[in-house]
Amino acid sequence: MKTLSLETIGQQAVTAAQVLSQLDTRTKNEALLAMAQGLTTNEVAILAANQKDMAQAEVNQVKKVMLDRLLLTSERLQAMAAGIRQVATLADPIGQVTSGWQTQDGLQIKQVRVPLGVVGMIYEARPNVTVDAATLTFKSGNAVILRGGKEAIATNIVLANTLRDALTSVGLPADAVQLISDTTHETAQELMQLNDYLDVLIPRGSAKFINMVVDKATVPVIETGAGNCHIYVAEDADFKMALDIIVNAKTQRPSVCNAMEKLVLNSEIAADFLPQLQAALTPYNVTLRGDERAKAILPDIEAATAADWGTEYDDYILAIKVVDNLDEAIAHINRYNTKHSEAIITNNYAYSQQFTKQIDAAVVYVNASTRFTDGFEFGFGAEIGISTQKLHARGPMGLTALTSTKYIAEGNGQIRQ
Amino acid sequence: MKTLSLETIGQQAVTAAQVLSQLDTRTKNEALLAMAQGLTTNEVAILAANQKDMAQAEVNQVKKVMLDRLLLTSERLQAMAAGIRQVATLADPIGQVTSGWQTQDGLQIKQVRVPLGVVGMIYEARPNVTVDAATLTFKSGNAVILRGGKEAIATNIVLANTLRDALTSVGLPADAVQLISDTTHETAQELMQLNDYLDVLIPRGSAKFINMVVDKATVPVIETGAGNCHIYVAEDADFKMALDIIVNAKTQRPSVCNAMEKLVLNSEIAADFLPQLQAALTPYNVTLRGDERAKAILPDIEAATAADWGTEYDDYILAIKVVDNLDEAIAHINRYNTKHSEAIITNNYAYSQQFTKQIDAAVVYVNASTRFTDGFEFGFGAEIGISTQKLHARGPMGLTALTSTKYIAEGNGQIRQ
Repeated sequence: MKTLSLETIGQQAVTAAQVLSQLDTRTKNEALLAMAQGLTTNEVAILAANQKDMAQAEVNQVKKVMLDRLLLTSERLQAMAAGIRQVATLADPIGQVTSGWQTQDGLQIKQVRVPLGVVGMIYEARPNVTVDAATLTFKSGNAVILRGGKEAIATNIVLANTLRDALTSVGLPADAVQLISDTTHETAQELMQLNDYLDVLIPRGSAKFINMVVDKATVPVIETGAGNCHIYVAEDADFKMALDIIVNAKTQRPSVCNAMEKLVLNSEIAADFLPQLQAALTPYNVTLRGDERAKAILPDIEAATAADWGTEYDDYILAIKVVDNLDEAIAHINRYNTKHSEAIITNNYAYSQQFTKQIDAAVVYVNASTRFTDGFEFGFGAEIGISTQKLHARGPMGLTALTSTKYIAEGNGQIRQ
Repeated sequence: MKTLSLETIGQQAVTAAQVLSQLDTRTKNEALLAMAQGLTTNEVAILAANQKDMAQAEVNQVKKVMLDRLLLTSERLQAMAAGIRQVATLADPIGQVTSGWQTQDGLQIKQVRVPLGVVGMIYEARPNVTVDAATLTFKSGNAVILRGGKEAIATNIVLANTLRDALTSVGLPADAVQLISDTTHETAQELMQLNDYLDVLIPRGSAKFINMVVDKATVPVIETGAGNCHIYVAEDADFKMALDIIVNAKTQRPSVCNAMEKLVLNSEIAADFLPQLQAALTPYNVTLRGDERAKAILPDIEAATAADWGTEYDDYILAIKVVDNLDEAIAHINRYNTKHSEAIITNNYAYSQQFTKQIDAAVVYVNASTRFTDGFEFGFGAEIGISTQKLHARGPMGLTALTSTKYIAEGNGQIRQ
């Protein structure tokens, strides 16, 4: 892929998007299967490029956890190909009639799902985002402009070329998938301000990275991912259920955005519950931090400072806030949460109603782990990210989040009175 | 209303929004009826303030058309009050369950409509926007921060205080409706960057004004209103239908965004159609501008320059582009339109299908006037604006466009495998 100006890439994306918006589902699925086949056929070249990235990353002393995110293996590549075949089986949202009616003048109006147009994806090291984003935007009829991190650039170039070759092989425009091969900060900056061509920009990566994009972008951004998730345990909670859910939400995969970060606990049960919690979390090496009331019960834990309440640890750390009632719990959560996922453990009907109504978050749980906030767990079959904003899409985003609508109004000569 | 910092106004709005999000429909409707009553009760004070604005505008030699927009009369005030009573009768979108299902783990998920939170409105001279925006955002459970133009500031202050007093009279927080009384550029700039408190900013006014807001805002903006609307007359069109629709779309109210600005005409019928069009538009003093082929048929009309194709006149001017076929027409329209409203006049089934599928616009018409793009004409009962962007809302925006959703997931101890 030779280096093109962002202007050229943008124009090419718009031209490809016009073609994509008109494709039927069968054609798109054939292209997706060709992409999956391409990953298998090009395995040697893809893994060789990935080895180049890995070697460079080791020279640059990239952290071990990052190295693992960057690494592709034959197995991981086959999982990516299987993922593409899975996208081919998903229902196509384009052309769906979402509503329809007749006006007082006899105009027949229908609202129809259409692609957004050109989607920008800006992300950090993981090369699987290249394939996920390209195939999900393609299935929903959008052209995509990809800007991955420099650590994965050799891998990303081979992956993008594989997908582009697959498109060409079925007679579709390769520019439906374009990767910005120049990974300098300047191209990221330019992409964030490519207002003439981009319909939306979706950042994927750390909270810091996403905040930077929200700050600098002039194109519309869908904010994803920051998750400072709370679980409130009410005074009537079933201890076993609460402990099981907390252990799951905190330890099953602490580095992700839907992991639990904070326990809010009713004071009535704190003295009984906290020692059991400590015992349950000890095998997982979870560091506990508590407010004064929690420390009064568990004196050996760390003291939580004011900064803790707003912090997403993404680590084996859990901070504990003791409150006297549900109102206090809701006020604390609404003040510090990132509007991602919050849960209450209770068997009290009124509590469950008040919590789900008053908590401001993309997903509010009663008696379940916050870890379910995920496009696959929600049954969407795929996920382009988890929106933590209120405009356009909120919560796990499947294919529908990558669409817009248009109204079609059919008449027989109507003029306005 | 004393002058407060935008920070204070933002905090007060968030606090009020939390209360508003929990109100039932009956309570909101009672408040709306109190607001309507308030306009009637305060008529003398409102009209006196408006006279002050009018006198100042005349001193400032404001244009006559602007003066008319600024003017309130007893009749106009009663129409505003009737408008509020109408909003009270509209269905409340909040609490609507938009979808619901059970996951493989037995989680019961439902997606529920919730308010956006805090809506900012920034607009020019018309004082009726103050009342429209405040009541529509209120009915949909949002707090609003209003920033009107300096020309209407005396009127706006009395109107906003009237609405706030009505809220207080029914025991609701007055800060659900706040007007920024300082109309310097600095407060507009601050509002456009009030990211910590605003969930969305909606500009209302001229295309130039809206572009300025889109450019400078760091908060999410819903772009409204720019309309360079085309009507394509195919070679098989019924001439009488085409002429009736063009006269309506061009002349019924040329200053609005859904008025026709461009005629795209099939060359086969140009020689027959254009003289009839000229005759039909002459009584309305419409200035015609044509490309070379149109001028060859109507030599006395002005020549359209390249700049014409992208210009929204908002005036009694119509530019004519002659094309050889539908593909050319679609390419021209998709290149120059503002993605607002576009129409085809044809009796050909395949043409109607191709046009509605390939034209990229909020509303695409077959055999009807573009003037129907309007929340009231669409049957939404109200309109906060017409979105010309693809994210969140597209086309006429009713109450639903002022909402978001959240997922509520009810379980009985589910943990993620």
